[in-house]
Amino acid sequence: MTTSASGSFYPDLPTGSIPTGSIPTVPFTAPRADRTRARERDDVPARPHRGAGKAVVALGGGHGLSASLSALRLLTNHLTAVVTVADDGGSSGRLREELEVLPPGDLRMALSALCDDSDWGMTWRDVMQHRFGALPEHNTPLEGHALGNLLIVTLWELLGDPVEGLRWAGALLRAQGQVLPMSITPLVIEGDVEGTDGVRTVTGQVALAKEPFVKNVRLQPPGAVVCKQALDAVEAADCVILGPGSWHTSVLPHLLLPELRQALAHTEGQRVITMNLSRDAETAGKTSAQELQVLHDHAPELRIDAVVVDPSAVEDRAHLEEVAAAMGAAVHFADLRRGSGQQVHSPFKLAAAYQEVMGG
Amino acid sequence: MTTSASGSFYPDLPTGSIPTGSIPTVPFTAPRADRTRARERDDVPARPHRGAGKAVVALGGGHGLSASLSALRLLTNHLTAVVTVADDGGSSGRLREELEVLPPGDLRMALSALCDDSDWGMTWRDVMQHRFGALPEHNTPLEGHALGNLLIVTLWELLGDPVEGLRWAGALLRAQGQVLPMSITPLVIEGDVEGTDGVRTVTGQVALAKEPFVKNVRLQPPGAVVCKQALDAVEAADCVILGPGSWHTSVLPHLLLPELRQALAHTEGQRVITMNLSRDAETAGKTSAQELQVLHDHAPELRIDAVVVDPSAVEDRAHLEEVAAAMGAAVHFADLRRGSGQQVHSPFKLAAAYQEVMGG
Repeated sequence: MTTSASGSFYPDLPTGSIPTGSIPTVPFTAPRADRTRARERDDVPARPHRGAGKAVVALGGGHGLSASLSALRLLTNHLTAVVTVADDGGSSGRLREELEVLPPGDLRMALSALCDDSDWGMTWRDVMQHRFGALPEHNTPLEGHALGNLLIVTLWELLGDPVEGLRWAGALLRAQGQVLPMSITPLVIEGDVEGTDGVRTVTGQVALAKEPFVKNVRLQPPGAVVCKQALDAVEAADCVILGPGSWHTSVLPHLLLPELRQALAHTEGQRVITMNLSRDAETAGKTSAQELQVLHDHAPELRIDAVVVDPSAVEDRAHLEEVAAAMGAAVHFADLRRGSGQQVHSPFKLAAAYQEVMGG
Repeated sequence: MTTSASGSFYPDLPTGSIPTGSIPTVPFTAPRADRTRARERDDVPARPHRGAGKAVVALGGGHGLSASLSALRLLTNHLTAVVTVADDGGSSGRLREELEVLPPGDLRMALSALCDDSDWGMTWRDVMQHRFGALPEHNTPLEGHALGNLLIVTLWELLGDPVEGLRWAGALLRAQGQVLPMSITPLVIEGDVEGTDGVRTVTGQVALAKEPFVKNVRLQPPGAVVCKQALDAVEAADCVILGPGSWHTSVLPHLLLPELRQALAHTEGQRVITMNLSRDAETAGKTSAQELQVLHDHAPELRIDAVVVDPSAVEDRAHLEEVAAAMGAAVHFADLRRGSGQQVHSPFKLAAAYQEVMGG
């Protein structure tokens, strides 16, 4: 039996470190003009060492969004994640199919990234991310399900509303920001792949993520309902950040839902794109400039203020700056890797880069 | 979109009502002589309106244990639940079989009963107790699993120790007391049933719970390992409370594990039995006196201080007092029903009865 340092049965919890005040009170439904006033109502104490507490919206999915959220939660108390809901594989794919719900996996990863740094928060993060194992020669229908996916689905079943369910999931975990789906309709991504025998359509996130020569990525169904609260958050943001992440299946989808694309185009907030540290199957053979060009091709009207990138991931600096300039953006070069040669963003380095770009 | 009264994204959380101080710091491993000193170390403020904060251990399982815990958490900050782990049906039975773990269901119910009364705690309770549904014509392997069972199993898989896992489950939920299994070995209950063609052995909690004429209830396997922390808690208790609950399958098992029975016999704490409000399939046709006699028959050496019972559930008052006296106990009669004729204990009435019995 392990007892805590204070001799109590329960593990040592950070004294006073999980106060109500640490729950971000994001006035994201307030119209832009009301933003300052809404903020004055906040009981979140000013934290000058954490920047000015700007309203920041991070868009993406999967590990890439985790990386930007892990950095941004160090900078602001007004953080919103807007998450792709097009996954059709693994635990998420099974739940989506069996229970007719949004695929929860990317939402779970975002919530996990927003758990706090106390033992309590880190344990919740581990619990959310844990996947059930299997025993040899046993029937194991739970195998591969992440507990966090099941927690989110539970709240959806209890509350009957995807946004309310995520709001409560965040509250139960005391997440340091809110998590919203980009759409309240489960999405299907499809794209065209050119082969020797013509163009074929590839459907589904899992299938598409394996294809390096995809064009014309699009979302189904055509009438997918955008998450209203996500639109409001983007419109009221001081800064919106797209990427890093799987380029076609986690990042690009946010430019493919008409209302969300329009909100991104019209927000008065700063628009920032974070590039990846390496190419995956989706972007194999592409340079970072070509990667950026994909976004420009799919949403030519979208103006960008800054592109954040690690110089070691850039093959042709001049070309990248050229594509960025065509989108209206300056390129912000910064060392972003957790360690030399590693393909993982350091939350601290990324936070520093975002802080510079945001002028905090 | 629902926003809270304060206009924040997250639901209103009780300001300051879930402080670290509300986590019971139970010095249950301290030897008896050290108990007072250990308590002086506690940072739990004295709460005279909640009694003297006696160390109380409630033993049982299922809904019965939920009832005693729901009452006792109103009385003390030093509460321990010791829970039967012999369930072989439903979600628990499947998890036990598929993952070779303790059946988590009764442990989950105990943790749920210890969630606090804030919106946060009550939502956690609902989430823990929620069972996944099914959609017609869908493959639904999750159907019937309680989220709380999966949370407990997750912590067992992460921590590799049933007691550590429950300790963390309690901490993550900020449960108002600790939950321990009576044994760290999954148990099997069996008993003899006399029929017209002789005596047959009935094995398993689900099967046994349907049998009204069971004798010689016993636990398998013979070498089941008692939970050391449960023994310590019983030995250091000011008061141990057995029942209410399914008599043969939730209450009696605590007298059938030799070390636990010995600890119950030797504790210097008060020993209290809480009788049921009605008969179920296990005790159909028995009077409350005969029900009490079952415990006496299985553990004749066990001395009891008080038997708490609602007079409306007593068929033969004199006989009940006689059996109680044979065990050394006085009978404490009190109105305990949530409403007239209801078969559910009122937590408040039960708390009042326990307070009187404990002399608080």
